[in-house]
Amino acid sequence: NKRYNIAVLPGDGVGNEVIPVAVDALRLAGSLEGLDLRFEELPIGGVALDLVGVPLPEETLTKAKNSDAVLLGAVGWPKWDNNPKHLKPITALLQLRAGLEVFSNLRPITVFPQLVDSTFLRKDTAEGVDLMIIRELTGGIYNAHPRGFTTNEQGDEVGFCTESYSATEVDRIARVAFDIAKQRRSKLCSVDKATVLEGSMLWRKRVTSMALEYPEVEVSHLLIDTAAMDLVRHPRQFDTILTGVMFGDILSDLAAMIPGSVGLLPSAALGDSGPGIFEPVHGSAPKHYGKDTVNPLAAVLSAAMLFRYGLKEESAARRIEIAVSDVLDRGFRTRDIHTPGTALVGCKRMGEEILRSL
Amino acid sequence: NKRYNIAVLPGDGVGNEVIPVAVDALRLAGSLEGLDLRFEELPIGGVALDLVGVPLPEETLTKAKNSDAVLLGAVGWPKWDNNPKHLKPITALLQLRAGLEVFSNLRPITVFPQLVDSTFLRKDTAEGVDLMIIRELTGGIYNAHPRGFTTNEQGDEVGFCTESYSATEVDRIARVAFDIAKQRRSKLCSVDKATVLEGSMLWRKRVTSMALEYPEVEVSHLLIDTAAMDLVRHPRQFDTILTGVMFGDILSDLAAMIPGSVGLLPSAALGDSGPGIFEPVHGSAPKHYGKDTVNPLAAVLSAAMLFRYGLKEESAARRIEIAVSDVLDRGFRTRDIHTPGTALVGCKRMGEEILRSL
Ligand SMILES: CC(C)[C@H](C(=O)O)[C@@H](O)C(=O)O
Ligand SMILES: CC(C)[C@H](C(=O)O)[C@@H](O)C(=O)O
Repeated sequence: NKRYNIAVLPGDGVGNEVIPVAVDALRLAGSLEGLDLRFEELPIGGVALDLVGVPLPEETLTKAKNSDAVLLGAVGWPKWDNNPKHLKPITALLQLRAGLEVFSNLRPITVFPQLVDSTFLRKDTAEGVDLMIIRELTGGIYNAHPRGFTTNEQGDEVGFCTESYSATEVDRIARVAFDIAKQRRSKLCSVDKATVLEGSMLWRKRVTSMALEYPEVEVSHLLIDTAAMDLVRHPRQFDTILTGVMFGDILSDLAAMIPGSVGLLPSAALGDSGPGIFEPVHGSAPKHYGKDTVNPLAAVLSAAMLFRYGLKEESAARRIEIAVSDVLDRGFRTRDIHTPGTALVGCKRMGEEILRSL
Repeated sequence: NKRYNIAVLPGDGVGNEVIPVAVDALRLAGSLEGLDLRFEELPIGGVALDLVGVPLPEETLTKAKNSDAVLLGAVGWPKWDNNPKHLKPITALLQLRAGLEVFSNLRPITVFPQLVDSTFLRKDTAEGVDLMIIRELTGGIYNAHPRGFTTNEQGDEVGFCTESYSATEVDRIARVAFDIAKQRRSKLCSVDKATVLEGSMLWRKRVTSMALEYPEVEVSHLLIDTAAMDLVRHPRQFDTILTGVMFGDILSDLAAMIPGSVGLLPSAALGDSGPGIFEPVHGSAPKHYGKDTVNPLAAVLSAAMLFRYGLKEESAARRIEIAVSDVLDRGFRTRDIHTPGTALVGCKRMGEEILRSL
């Protein structure tokens, strides 16, 4: 039996509701494939602040580094909103990404045929959408040098930070995107603001020259403002989207409106080697916590990504995805995707049905 | 008779189709109000590059500065796409904004009841939307210091530019937004990325403290990723949106999906004193140029904004807006907003119908 160590970081709020469901799915799908998964739960975010006074404890980072994959819930809680930045829960996320050097963020957006009515767009617009956003994760304006606060000549307070991309940074994320596009429908759309930002100009130049190595991939470039429009009016045109950390944050949340719920969206954050981070997109959702109403499918689909991209266990990944589809076929829906004629269930019950389908 | 000088800058592509329509509307509505409008046409963009080798000729800028208002079409043409940045048509736009010190960009998004079927969203989502985006226009990452290209320690090429906001810059645009919100439904939503960007942290702090001066305005703050989602799923919640130059670029194009066509969207760019720039949002649209098919309503509604915000001639502004509504009531539609049962017309004919309605 192959043995894997999974670091489990439920974090804050609904992370604690959805991660147990994802762990159950991992365990069962894994054992059906003869895999021996060991889970270790570690504190992160507000929970860690309460426990040891920092959002990302040394031990959590070390153990995450030594694991085969990290399953993350969510970080953030209103109680900590006024903390200084280095003591905010989300700082843990930025530190974990940096610590594990996970520079590529994969955010697939799929409209399940069973859920097309949940879309916030028109049904005929959303139908059949199946796209993958590849977001650069550790560079750009998020990882700004220099950054900070200063006083200008007029005695005026200024907040500033530097957006930058280097050729190496662009190349390594572009390589990931080209390789993934090749395994998909071989269409890659790179999104930038090359009319204004120097980082984007370099970005476009490097992507254009890498395209020569991938003659089979059809490459296009869109400005971020046009891309935002196109995601709403013609999302089916997209296969693989490549973009930077800031634009990727916006586009991937915007794209969540196509399936209609962030409760359906998984993500993976990968580096060159070492463990990846697998995480539902939705966040800690203080308003919904403790009610057993949130949708665990984003976490469960993140577990599938953990198998596929983290452990290279494709058949275990497929098992989970098929189970999700089966649960939807059987009519179970959490509140965020509930429509007349389907069975409204809570988070736990949805988890039980996933296990049944598995 | 009050006399006004209007600088008319049709620029490139469809700018040359829609601006004549807007000029006709200005002239007629103005004369009905007893205003004496003088128009002077000046080159900008690709047209100016052809003529004198720079995108914004000195004379155009000087005359624009000395005018009472600037009516702008669009700049940009594929022929110039590979020019160095200082010789690109869109550089003219950035230079004109800087030269006229127009730091606030007003982009209203209104769903005309006659056109609710044109929306790219669901009809029930789009119905009744009436919001105003106030975008900071001359600071932030667009006006970056320092910016450029460099080589890092690893010998790697780097493109970089600095996002910054000063307290004074935030305060002056926030003041505009609070004042406009007060004249509307007194709801102001400020959009930033205060969890990551220092400029945004300062932005949020200043907006929060200015809110104390406007107890009658209900203020909220959203992160850009959430704002993008909310514009698609619950746009009616918004009244006035205040944001920076980069996020405003993205949000205002995204918001164009609510009425369903950029061909309907006007804009105004205003400074503290001096002439404003009034401009349809749609750009030069090379694909559509020369076919007499584009929608002149964005330009005509920009003319209405010119009266309202540029010349403080509210009744002339109203005349134009009522004429637009009347033309729509009479069933005329350009291609971008055409639906079964309405009369498909070209740009010129739409212009004639506007005059008739006036
Ligand atoms: C919490 C925040 C820093 C984070 C980001 O913007 O990366 C989140 O929005 C995300 O998209 O994962
Ligand atoms: C052409 C470009 C520089 C411009 C901008 O981003 O400001 C345009 O997209 C706009 O929104 O007016």
